[in-house]
Amino acid sequence: MSHPSDDGVRAYIECRREAFLDGLCEWLRIPSVSAQPDHAADVRRSADWLAAKLTETGFPVAEVWPTPGAPAVYAEWPSDHPDAPTVLVYGHHDVQPAAREDGWHSDPFEPVVRENRLYARGAADDKGQVFFHTLGVRAHLAATGRTAPAVHLKLLIEGEEESGSPHFRALVEERAERLAADAVIVSDTGMWSADTPTVCTGMRGLAECEIRLYGPDQDIHSGSFGGAVPNPATAAARLVAALHDEHERVAIPGFYDGIVELTERERALFAELPFDEERWLSTAKSYAAHGEAGHTTLERVWARPTAEVNGIAGGYQGPGSKTIIPSEAMVKLSFRLVAGQDPDRIEKAVRAWTAERLPAGIRHEIDFGAATRPCLTPLDHPALRSVVRAMSRAFDRPVRYTREGGSGPAADLQEVLGAPVLFLGISVPSDGWHAPDEKVELDLLLKGVEATAYLWGDLAEHWSHAP
Amino acid sequence: MSHPSDDGVRAYIECRREAFLDGLCEWLRIPSVSAQPDHAADVRRSADWLAAKLTETGFPVAEVWPTPGAPAVYAEWPSDHPDAPTVLVYGHHDVQPAAREDGWHSDPFEPVVRENRLYARGAADDKGQVFFHTLGVRAHLAATGRTAPAVHLKLLIEGEEESGSPHFRALVEERAERLAADAVIVSDTGMWSADTPTVCTGMRGLAECEIRLYGPDQDIHSGSFGGAVPNPATAAARLVAALHDEHERVAIPGFYDGIVELTERERALFAELPFDEERWLSTAKSYAAHGEAGHTTLERVWARPTAEVNGIAGGYQGPGSKTIIPSEAMVKLSFRLVAGQDPDRIEKAVRAWTAERLPAGIRHEIDFGAATRPCLTPLDHPALRSVVRAMSRAFDRPVRYTREGGSGPAADLQEVLGAPVLFLGISVPSDGWHAPDEKVELDLLLKGVEATAYLWGDLAEHWSHAP
Repeated sequence: MSHPSDDGVRAYIECRREAFLDGLCEWLRIPSVSAQPDHAADVRRSADWLAAKLTETGFPVAEVWPTPGAPAVYAEWPSDHPDAPTVLVYGHHDVQPAAREDGWHSDPFEPVVRENRLYARGAADDKGQVFFHTLGVRAHLAATGRTAPAVHLKLLIEGEEESGSPHFRALVEERAERLAADAVIVSDTGMWSADTPTVCTGMRGLAECEIRLYGPDQDIHSGSFGGAVPNPATAAARLVAALHDEHERVAIPGFYDGIVELTERERALFAELPFDEERWLSTAKSYAAHGEAGHTTLERVWARPTAEVNGIAGGYQGPGSKTIIPSEAMVKLSFRLVAGQDPDRIEKAVRAWTAERLPAGIRHEIDFGAATRPCLTPLDHPALRSVVRAMSRAFDRPVRYTREGGSGPAADLQEVLGAPVLFLGISVPSDGWHAPDEKVELDLLLKGVEATAYLWGDLAEHWSHAP
Repeated sequence: MSHPSDDGVRAYIECRREAFLDGLCEWLRIPSVSAQPDHAADVRRSADWLAAKLTETGFPVAEVWPTPGAPAVYAEWPSDHPDAPTVLVYGHHDVQPAAREDGWHSDPFEPVVRENRLYARGAADDKGQVFFHTLGVRAHLAATGRTAPAVHLKLLIEGEEESGSPHFRALVEERAERLAADAVIVSDTGMWSADTPTVCTGMRGLAECEIRLYGPDQDIHSGSFGGAVPNPATAAARLVAALHDEHERVAIPGFYDGIVELTERERALFAELPFDEERWLSTAKSYAAHGEAGHTTLERVWARPTAEVNGIAGGYQGPGSKTIIPSEAMVKLSFRLVAGQDPDRIEKAVRAWTAERLPAGIRHEIDFGAATRPCLTPLDHPALRSVVRAMSRAFDRPVRYTREGGSGPAADLQEVLGAPVLFLGISVPSDGWHAPDEKVELDLLLKGVEATAYLWGDLAEHWSHAP
């Protein structure tokens, strides 16, 4: 399926590889951790840096859009063909927290290339995948001899994705007119593997909360009082233990109400993938598969809703022992959601379930962060076919279909803009998102550049965007 | 029951009150926290300080006894009456961890008097109660006109009680000849209240462990992998939740095997005490009573074995959220034991129970600290009667009987030395052992001095120690 022009695109990209990577590394050095208030200035700096880079790339419009939290970056490059479809690329410029002592082999904010991999926080999630659009659009212009893209190209790169996108929906609603698009391309997902390129057709949603439990007004002696008052750490543990039933199904009443179940065709498509549980476990750095009864591992991570504890704390955590009943305890929970689940309904269900399960004498507070909705792309959408063709050309082989277990605010774009959501990502599972030693494979990163170089022309050619 | 000589004893003590408190404050300024390795030098300094003070008090022998951990202090003052019984006083000079930011209203290691209470870590547990023996023996000599005590007086003040006394038993076994005694007096317990002086007749034992659970080799993305691998924080929570059954009985198989149940007489003695649950809850800084079905609060804290979680940790505990499955989790558990429970058997039971409950893919390690055995004093022991009389004289009213929910290595002394263990303590429940704002009531502290001033004569007079 290689086109005659593809060699030219590859040569163009290869020639600009060093400058492209230098630019990415400069961006990765900015520790734009949106979850940590002391990095707020870095997140702003990251937005300014990106806007300047997009201007340098050729986007006639490149703006930093403030929000009540971290700023987003918006850029626009209209097609010279007024009837061309409008495409909005979504990504994010903020990153997960990272510290050398978490187990990194190099400073997470000092990018380093080892064995053709670029290691840094954000290398894959998501700066690398945003950044391939800069060289991608230039390659598209060079290959087609155009001075403007074949589609009306818009970029919206937000700054709070790793904090649950608390202001994203309001921003999209407020700026809906400028963001108007015929399709949304999300570059914040991955592929099956370097050998099996895939296109993602859906993403789980996310609701998360912190529950703080209060027992005695201060830590008290476990000898003098132990066995006779409720212990908030015990209460926290019992809550977490009650999250699942004996089939590892989430036991919160109403949790599964209304979910869109997998079809037989989707289960069959999943089953076609060359899944190797041993290899998957090694990517997960884990020692056993474990989850909801009646579902395969792929179904569990892509298409089933979950409840996980991301953090738990209470009492004495230092060396040795301290024989206390702690005054308080805390759990951070997150719920991955699938199509049909409404985050507001999930929040209500979790609040009711928590309040009902706590014993007398344990007071509590729950804070929910902003939720992210789940989304699904129709398998037969013409724009999805363009994405599949562009990926096939870049990788020189057929692509298969996956879903994404992680979450992004794509569903808000779908809902507010009324546009279908497509996914174009080149990260692989071993990239270590949210983990120490996050990296991106340089060869795949350049395939991402290449796929976008093909995509805009294909979309303009094959898709009539008129409703 | 006031003796004619008691006014003299009181005047003697009152006259030396300031110097006595100055000495105690000097000792309390030494942060002898045995559980924290960076305080090891302070624990040694505390031992040196005490040995010097006992020499100054008049003890002809005062030695620092090294152990593989923190040192103990031993002192001896033989009676001038060779046939006198030998009494060994037990206490400890190490203290619980404490930091201003835990909620203290003043520096925990800068003693301060507010409203006739002395606030400092160790004020009640246990430096204050060790220290009253210094002025007590001087008051005994002054009141009786003796130059040596009426009993052969020995003191053993250990330095690792707050760390579970890991080297205490070996020390006692090694030095058993010098420690030989007809009775042990433990000054490391409390009374019912300032208005209801009591003598304690038993102490719970303690076994404690830290369980570390390992899941993925590093933190992994809860979107990419959530729902499909075991989460060690979930496993930790399920362990803690499984500690108790629905009647709040400890659910570890074999836990209750062989325990000495309360007699009807003991339950009746407990029931005689002026227990006010609201007041007790206020001392416990707690909002509800909660515990093993079929037992009163006093039975639960004094005479029933327990399992408590003292600390739990896993995953992200910082601000905001981090959507990970944590690599590891940890729980610190402690078990209070009653007569008939063997710490070695409990350790075996906990290890087996833990190993059996963890899912595939979760590896674990358990470390048990040194255990403390439970002990009970026979209610009709003649030395116990002397203690009761001395306390009654000091407080000018009858004393009642309690037990102690906390733990001490008294049972090792009982076992190795073959001597009965008695308790003489003046702390009250509001003293805040192990908690912020630990204090001792100055009036009660001086009653402790007074009680020991009477005790040595009473024991010599009423108790034939010959077997």
